[in-house]
Order: sequence, then structure tokens, then C-alpha cells
Amino acid sequence: LKTYLDCYPCFLRQALEAARSAGADEEKQHVVLIRAMDALKMVPATATPPVVGDVIHRIVREEIDGGDPYKEIKEASTHQALSLYPRLKDMLAESDSPLDLAIRLAIAGNVIDVGPERRYDLWNTIEQTISEPFAINDDVAFREMLAKAQYVLYLADNAGETVFDRILIETMAKPAIYAVKAGPILNDATVEDAMAAGLSAVAEIVSTGSDAPGTILDRCSSDFQALFREAELIVAKGQANYETLSDECGPIFFLLKAKCPVIARDLGVSTGSIVLKQGKQK
Amino acid sequence: LKTYLDCYPCFLRQALEAARSAGADEEKQHVVLIRAMDALKMVPATATPPVVGDVIHRIVREEIDGGDPYKEIKEASTHQALSLYPRLKDMLAESDSPLDLAIRLAIAGNVIDVGPERRYDLWNTIEQTISEPFAINDDVAFREMLAKAQYVLYLADNAGETVFDRILIETMAKPAIYAVKAGPILNDATVEDAMAAGLSAVAEIVSTGSDAPGTILDRCSSDFQALFREAELIVAKGQANYETLSDECGPIFFLLKAKCPVIARDLGVSTGSIVLKQGKQK
Repeated sequence: LKTYLDCYPCFLRQALEAARSAGADEEKQHVVLIRAMDALKMVPATATPPVVGDVIHRIVREEIDGGDPYKEIKEASTHQALSLYPRLKDMLAESDSPLDLAIRLAIAGNVIDVGPERRYDLWNTIEQTISEPFAINDDVAFREMLAKAQYVLYLADNAGETVFDRILIETMAKPAIYAVKAGPILNDATVEDAMAAGLSAVAEIVSTGSDAPGTILDRCSSDFQALFREAELIVAKGQANYETLSDECGPIFFLLKAKCPVIARDLGVSTGSIVLKQGKQK
Repeated sequence: LKTYLDCYPCFLRQALEAARSAGADEEKQHVVLIRAMDALKMVPATATPPVVGDVIHRIVREEIDGGDPYKEIKEASTHQALSLYPRLKDMLAESDSPLDLAIRLAIAGNVIDVGPERRYDLWNTIEQTISEPFAINDDVAFREMLAKAQYVLYLADNAGETVFDRILIETMAKPAIYAVKAGPILNDATVEDAMAAGLSAVAEIVSTGSDAPGTILDRCSSDFQALFREAELIVAKGQANYETLSDECGPIFFLLKAKCPVIARDLGVSTGSIVLKQGKQK
């Protein structure tokens, strides 16, 4: 998925919000915007939005002296999601179709995102997501490949959403490798965030070796690239993983809520839709 | 009201939407965005958003060879508003407080704006605006000054909204001068748009002499500046007139819906609020 012109104003908004989240003063916020605009002028026509987002958020981190603008927001998201964990597990225990429910919950958790828009109501999203129709639902293929796979490679998205991923991993009942970012980018989960959400109890946590949004394979470590190539089943969470891997062939299933109009248009669904989409076949 | 950093992404979005409205191809849209970013980098700290908007939308018009990107949208807005005119006049005929209702309708019409966000439901807005409380309501002072004034200088905002202004002018029952833009800017009303909305039947239509958004007095014609200085009562419609005239002393009343969060914050009201606010006193 290439960067559309609609992404330009969105990146400026993200840069401003990230600078503010990091406590930057107005002068520093202005510097961030100016540098972001300079960077946007250089965007190659084929760059995906996560490649551009990587540049933009790197500028913010440079200007705020290498900190993590979303540290507190990530901690709060994880805390909130963990507080819902017992209630969600009760729902699963009572469900006739726990895998379907766990997939829906994992998608609902994808609303925890500081990229597209900041405001969301988590519980409302959960209630809506467990009953609404999928815009794309490749669940038959997913169940078939899950039954055969020895383990699942699970590509994480945001902190807090991690707790919902944990629930899906528990429900899939297969060994899992949970791949997170090598360093802070937006509110994406790092090893630390995955640990805080209790993922180490249900999966082996690995780093992709990259701190760019999504999974830009040629920026990932060779270890991770090997993991990716060998995997029998890959669950790729969220928009950025779709943006960076939608042209990749492999046993990939994208689980996401199409929050951004550009991505929704690319998928051919309405904004806000829930999606379980099989990746391109080899 | 000075330009805030939040306005930067909004201006980029406006530039893109204006270029698209004008039918510019993607390459041209890209040029518009690049030029808009160059312009935003030069924004002086004290510039009001309409001063910046003037630069941004001038770039769009230059790139599309001087046309009016919003010509068709303005015509459609006027047509839609005119179709509601008889129904609104019936409501006024049955009202116990027609002036209050006409003020509310004039504010409801302010939702017809391509600047802050494109989507709106006109009839829904009307129904809501006729019953919701004002966030600021200086109507006592307004009625007092209206009773004394020989005539009203009415500063127009957008095409389509013009029809709602016409209704307020008819209800105020005073001679009126209706001031419009000298040329196309966003969906602001020009002489042609005011004529199409039937304003010539109820007011003398004049041009401010400027095609910048709002009313930037030192860019207006000397004739208009004299009119402004001599007026006993000025009705200033919409956000851009508030942004450019809020520091001006005079018998001004701002009628607007605070659609943009930056303006709402400046006014100390919630986004979406309706406002009848007296200007600064001499």
C-alpha cells in the first residue's frame, strides 16, 4: 500500500500529537512540524505509509532527545486492557464459538491506536465488534491452516492491544512466537510492553529487529526474516502490518479494524470495518 | 486569533480537498501540497488563520489556472438552501420569537462550510440549532443595538448560508448592506452567489474588495473600510470573520457555529456550540 496524498495532513497531525505527548513546548512542536514538512516533500511515490511514518516519528524522537513520546499512554492502555481481561475470559468460557469470539476481541483491541485518531471507547468497540459482520472474513482458510500449523508467528501491533492478542493466542492453543518492535514507534508494543501484558506466559516474545511501524521485512533482523520465511501461519495485526505486508506472499492472515479511510479504500471496505483477510498465496 | 500549530495539518487537508474539487489530477494535487508546505513553513507567528488560508487557497487557484474550485459546490449549496426557504419562512410565521429563531437559523446555515470538515446534515443541524442552548448569547445587547440602528452591515460567509442570512435580514426588518468577497475563496459567497440566493431583494450587495477569507480590514477597499467604520451595527457571520475581527473594536456581533476546535477553545466553548457574541467595545 503506497502513501496517498491524504496521508500528508495525517502525518503532520501525528507529528504534532507525538511531540505534545512527549511534553514538547510549542517552539519544539513547531520545529517538529517544519522538519516533518521537509521530510514529506521528499517522500518517494512508492513509499508505504509506515516507511514515511518511521521518518516522521524518528524526527519527533530526535527532537525530544530520544525519549518515548507514548510511554505513559502505552502503560495506561496495557493497564486498562488488563483490567478487562477477566471479563473477556468469562465471555470466552461461556461462548459457543470461542475462536470466532477471540478473533473478534483481537480485532476490537486494534482500536487502541494513536495513529489514525486518538479518541475511542474501548468497551463500546468490544461490544460492537463481537456482534458486527466481518467486511472480509477468510475464517475457513484460517481455521484450516491453524489446525495444521505447528506454531503461530504473531506480529504484534499496539501496547494494550497485546492483552487481546494474548487472549487469541490462549484460545488458538498452539505454541506462539510473538514479534514486537525493537524500539519505541508510536504506541507499538516493544518487548517491555509485551511483558507487561503477560505475553511471556503464552508465547515466546521476539523482536523484529526494526523500530519502523508495521513489518518492513528488509529492515528486520536476519533472524526474524528467517522466522517469517519458515512460518506455517502468520497472524499480522493492525493497519501498519497490512500496509507493509499486503504484497507479500505467504501464509499470512491480516486481522484489523480499518480505521483509516485510505486503508479501507484499498481493502474495498467501509471505514471502521472489521477484517480477517488471507494474504497473497505463493 | 493567531494561527495555531493544529491549523497546519488542517490547511494541508484543505489544499488537497480544494485541488480535488477543482478536478486537479494527482500530480497537480501533489504540487499543491508541496507548495502549501513551503508556504506553511513561512507562516509568521502572528498571522491569523484566514491570512494563511488566503495564501494556501491562492496556490490552489494558481495551480488550477485561476478557476473556482468550489463553483459547483457553491451552486448546489445555494440550490439546497433555497429549497428549504419556504419551510423556514413557515416556521418563522408560526414562531412566538421570530428574531431568536431567525438568529438560530442564520447560525445553522453556517454549517455549510468546506473548510473545517466537509460532511454535514443541513436539516439535522437546523433542527438541533433551533432548540439547543447558546454557549454565548449576547442577545440583549444585540436587540438593543438593532432597535437603534438605522441599518445593518451584514458580513457574509458561505454560499448557501446566504439564504439563511436573507431570512435573518428579512426578520430584522432594517435596511441592510450585505458584504461579500471580491472573488472566489473556499465556498465563500461572492456577488454572484449572493444574487443567486436572492439577497438583492432584501439588501444592497457590496464587495469587501478582498478575496481573502474573513474580513482582513487593511486588505479591503477604502469604500468598504469606510462603511465598516461608520456602521452602527455589524453582523459578522462565521468563523473566519471571528478570526479576523475578534480584536477589532466596534458594534460587531459574531454569529457562528464553533466548528473548529481551535476557535472553540479561543471562545471558551465546546466544539459545535452556537454563539452570538458581542465584539470588543470602543
